[in-house]
Amino acid sequence: MLGKIEHLGIAVKDLDAANQVYEKLLGSAAYKQEAVESEHVTTSFFKAGENKIELLAASNPESAIAKFIEKRGEGIHHVAFAVEDIVAELQRLEEEGFTILNKEPKRGADNKWVAFVHPKGTNGVLVELCQEIKE
Amino acid sequence: MLGKIEHLGIAVKDLDAANQVYEKLLGSAAYKQEAVESEHVTTSFFKAGENKIELLAASNPESAIAKFIEKRGEGIHHVAFAVEDIVAELQRLEEEGFTILNKEPKRGADNKWVAFVHPKGTNGVLVELCQEIKE
Repeated sequence: MLGKIEHLGIAVKDLDAANQVYEKLLGSAAYKQEAVESEHVTTSFFKAGENKIELLAASNPESAIAKFIEKRGEGIHHVAFAVEDIVAELQRLEEEGFTILNKEPKRGADNKWVAFVHPKGTNGVLVELCQEIKE
Repeated sequence: MLGKIEHLGIAVKDLDAANQVYEKLLGSAAYKQEAVESEHVTTSFFKAGENKIELLAASNPESAIAKFIEKRGEGIHHVAFAVEDIVAELQRLEEEGFTILNKEPKRGADNKWVAFVHPKGTNGVLVELCQEIKE
């Protein structure tokens, strides 16, 4: 089963400007900023209790985030759930009939193995599973 | 400051069908279903670790959920943060320049006082604050 909401991903146009907004909103500053080259995004992370808010800005026009904003505007892009065994959960979800976008977990931001479930099978919600990388 | 993600609200067309999807996705069934007459919605709640997923379906065409789905399709509708003192937080956010949709907290689902922050000031994200009603 899926665990807590590890983070909520929000697509923004201008990361510096959005960092200022979310610092005011949440009442604390971003605790880290990180580029994920493979996804063509720059991210920042905020704490909200035991959850996190991830802001994502495109670092080039080919980024999925740039395309998302072009189509729908800024807003919530995905929700990520913590899992203890991402491989087992992906197999479980596939058997349940969900469409997995990357069956091989990939390295995401914040030291995580990540995989995505297609929103067509989840009422329009892009769902990420993530598992802490322990090395 | 805002606390944890109390819940994530997802707009769906057919609550019964979506309940089945989210039961499979999350790995556990909805623990309650509740109509909120004032908002013209029927909701169901799931646990995801210490967080909740709220599915919302319109109970009539005037519902904000019906309008949201008509415009954008099914998907994530809002994120709700737990607060300990909703009146104080609303005042803080207003002073920070955010637009509060209802300055007087109203009764929401799941025994909460709720208020909303307009998405125009939060990079397109409809933000809910919620505080447990203690009576």
